[in-house]
Amino acid sequence: MKKGRFITFEGGEGCGKSTQIKRLESYLKEKGVEVLVTREPGGTRLAELIRGLLKDEKDDPPCDRAELLLFLAARAQLVKNVILPALESGVWVLSDRFSDSTFAYQGYGRGLDLEILKIANDFACDSLKPDLTLLLDVPPEVASARMRKREKETNTEADRIELAGDEFHRKLREGFHALAADESDRIHTIDASGTPDEVWEAVCRSLKRLI
Amino acid sequence: MKKGRFITFEGGEGCGKSTQIKRLESYLKEKGVEVLVTREPGGTRLAELIRGLLKDEKDDPPCDRAELLLFLAARAQLVKNVILPALESGVWVLSDRFSDSTFAYQGYGRGLDLEILKIANDFACDSLKPDLTLLLDVPPEVASARMRKREKETNTEADRIELAGDEFHRKLREGFHALAADESDRIHTIDASGTPDEVWEAVCRSLKRLI
Repeated sequence: MKKGRFITFEGGEGCGKSTQIKRLESYLKEKGVEVLVTREPGGTRLAELIRGLLKDEKDDPPCDRAELLLFLAARAQLVKNVILPALESGVWVLSDRFSDSTFAYQGYGRGLDLEILKIANDFACDSLKPDLTLLLDVPPEVASARMRKREKETNTEADRIELAGDEFHRKLREGFHALAADESDRIHTIDASGTPDEVWEAVCRSLKRLI
Repeated sequence: MKKGRFITFEGGEGCGKSTQIKRLESYLKEKGVEVLVTREPGGTRLAELIRGLLKDEKDDPPCDRAELLLFLAARAQLVKNVILPALESGVWVLSDRFSDSTFAYQGYGRGLDLEILKIANDFACDSLKPDLTLLLDVPPEVASARMRKREKETNTEADRIELAGDEFHRKLREGFHALAADESDRIHTIDASGTPDEVWEAVCRSLKRLI
């Protein structure tokens, strides 16, 4: 029996998810709520190994279908071994990405059949759905400026998915908008082009429904 | 356009698949047929890395759903990058295990929903089906005697799936029988409890349809 709440953060690279998740985590903890933060793909030992295959495998990069199935395998393990036990014991779970990323990236982005993705994803999640999804939305030019800044500051390089190009990132954003239009009750779209404080205020307004 | 033939070998551990595949490979090559032998999970660099996760991950072993999705991810990569290109160029492909193993192990063995497995598998394979499947059938006691012999000879230990126990292996065999009953045209059940020569004769009788 699920007692905690499950909140997911979605949006393209550079939309500011990590910053807002950290802020929400602190906020909830101050209120005495037990919180678990996780990220996708990842969050268990096996899922992190799968993440490695998805991000770093350059000699034999996953084809579109293998990529989707690897994401779902990592999700299945995370849901079963981490998210469901936490929710059942009353812990709130915040996830950096979840099912909507699959629908946006592999469905709208790569063009895989969305109906089949939804059946396969529902199987992977054992039918778990987020109570609330916050879609942090930024125009592509803001996102890529933030990503370039981050790469410079952290001295890292863009990975395989980050490098997929403007056309892909445009389809991705359209996909997220379509998903939010279909499930406007669960998915709240937040304009994330402002300052972290402005975005945080919008996050708080969405949270009112749950607290 | 598919020009080569696709033949898969199925059956529990110790049923003698490898021996018969080697024999069929030599036989076809002598007849001037170009042949590619592959195994599942595996057969590409990425798929072999996934095989490693499935066989060796002991600290965070895949849950049933993650296991299934990892098998399908490896299959998607093998079909797209190896099997389909080979068949299209006229090469015959012999595979040690394919989709029927998924239905038998994860469906009948682990109890996952067979209809969903079939949808997800069809997605992973891009709808590819074998032209002929040879199910090498042996009673459990013959299979486990052969496996113990092999472990002794090769000085190896049984892996996670091989160790799953008698009840699991009984369900597995029943599953293979049910699959063969459903698709008797494609799946030929061969009594594999005899000598390699006896089994080979039965394999040749099944092959007549294709040659």
